[in-house]
Amino acid sequence: MINPSLKINELRQQPIGVFDSGLGGLTVVNQLMNQLPGESIIYFGDTARVPYGTKSSLTIQRFSVQIARFLQQQGVKLIVVACNTASSVALEEIKESVTVPVIGVIEPGARAALRESATKRIGVIGTSATVSAGKYEAVLKSLDSSVEVFSRACPLFVPLVEEGWIDTPVTEEVAAIYLKPLMGKNIASLILGCTHYPIIKATIKKVVNGNVQIIDSAIETAVEVRNTLQSHKIMNESSHLPEHLFYVSDFPQKFEEIARRLLGRPLVNVHRIALDNSI
Amino acid sequence: MINPSLKINELRQQPIGVFDSGLGGLTVVNQLMNQLPGESIIYFGDTARVPYGTKSSLTIQRFSVQIARFLQQQGVKLIVVACNTASSVALEEIKESVTVPVIGVIEPGARAALRESATKRIGVIGTSATVSAGKYEAVLKSLDSSVEVFSRACPLFVPLVEEGWIDTPVTEEVAAIYLKPLMGKNIASLILGCTHYPIIKATIKKVVNGNVQIIDSAIETAVEVRNTLQSHKIMNESSHLPEHLFYVSDFPQKFEEIARRLLGRPLVNVHRIALDNSI
Repeated sequence: MINPSLKINELRQQPIGVFDSGLGGLTVVNQLMNQLPGESIIYFGDTARVPYGTKSSLTIQRFSVQIARFLQQQGVKLIVVACNTASSVALEEIKESVTVPVIGVIEPGARAALRESATKRIGVIGTSATVSAGKYEAVLKSLDSSVEVFSRACPLFVPLVEEGWIDTPVTEEVAAIYLKPLMGKNIASLILGCTHYPIIKATIKKVVNGNVQIIDSAIETAVEVRNTLQSHKIMNESSHLPEHLFYVSDFPQKFEEIARRLLGRPLVNVHRIALDNSI
Repeated sequence: MINPSLKINELRQQPIGVFDSGLGGLTVVNQLMNQLPGESIIYFGDTARVPYGTKSSLTIQRFSVQIARFLQQQGVKLIVVACNTASSVALEEIKESVTVPVIGVIEPGARAALRESATKRIGVIGTSATVSAGKYEAVLKSLDSSVEVFSRACPLFVPLVEEGWIDTPVTEEVAAIYLKPLMGKNIASLILGCTHYPIIKATIKKVVNGNVQIIDSAIETAVEVRNTLQSHKIMNESSHLPEHLFYVSDFPQKFEEIARRLLGRPLVNVHRIALDNSI
């Protein structure tokens, strides 16, 4: 029983909790809205402390657990860790800190990549913390020990997306520099291991070989969320319109512009909230 | 009287407190070590919540006041806000929260730029928060109302420095894009309004007109610190070797490499510390 204080019918109508280090997880929210239009969503973006991708595991774990507990307090029926960095280094700590099901973005992305990779040669790109943690490689190898994984950190992609340099010569040049070592490995698929990266998918496609399948974890994660809701029998089947509520820890510079780009529509119903914590 | 509990002789031997949103302020520490070799220093870098430059004034003020209070608790005789973003949006709040003298990096940089600008046409580059705040322009105009100021945010410079892409074609291309609008303004000097920027000074020089004076606030800030210590009669005149102590709120990815680049020497005597706070 996920939440003993709620009857199953009430639980079904509870929102899905989604969190990210900042606004990148809105690409996952976009997919959830598309694939699960009846579900309410509560999002938390830790915009006061973003980015996580360059920070230590200890700090990422502390921040992530704090946010997961906040979402559980809001009554969510399931938590999506819509951040590759937090999914890579803090998923176990998050699962231990709450009683609802927790879904990260690593396993869905890894499964999709395997499905699309006849040669079992898979590339992974992400933040420094995600690549250092090696979680994609570990999950891929646990699913199929014969797979070969080639990873590369691309720390400039997030600032480029947030600067709005989506389809520019500079971004293409940076992508070419980062991806060149992977291209020599004859990979069959490339996992976009950061929620910001789908925004520059077209630029990434330009610099990789044409036959490389690009794997967008956001789409696969939404599929996994649907499957989990079904298996736990907690899909919202009510005819009420869903409610979408967004919390952030800061309203940063360019907030509306970045949020709209990542969510694919204007962001409404947004509140700033302070969580008690220590650095 | 700065600190009534200490006699003037004891106060002289107290350290200088320096803080920054992350490690960029180490370029100011480098200048302090060069110009004031007898002074002890306590540094705080908020590496768990860096960067500040994209965040809101409210959040930057809260974080900055918290750190200034921490430094005062450590017994510092003076605080240097070695961060253009915090100096731009939180200097008054910091001054109100402590009893020791507080020196920001804006006024020293502005004074140096005026001195170097016969035509009184001055360029300023910095983070989004620094440029939005318009503090350089306000200070310059208060010093000389006939000055003309042209500002430009360069959000990609900090990630490029932290990625180690110091003297690369991509950095030069990004600099050319950012600085092109300023070059059309026939500026006499260009203020590097972010403590990371001196690291790419050579690349910036390549893309600006040869006669533009580049103003590095770190050097000017150290001069201002020396003047303030002299006027308050709190310069350390003891023959004891100074002590340098560094606190950070996180040990991020690439910490040692970035710190060495900014400080100009390896960073030793570093401790991680948690400050109680709210997001």
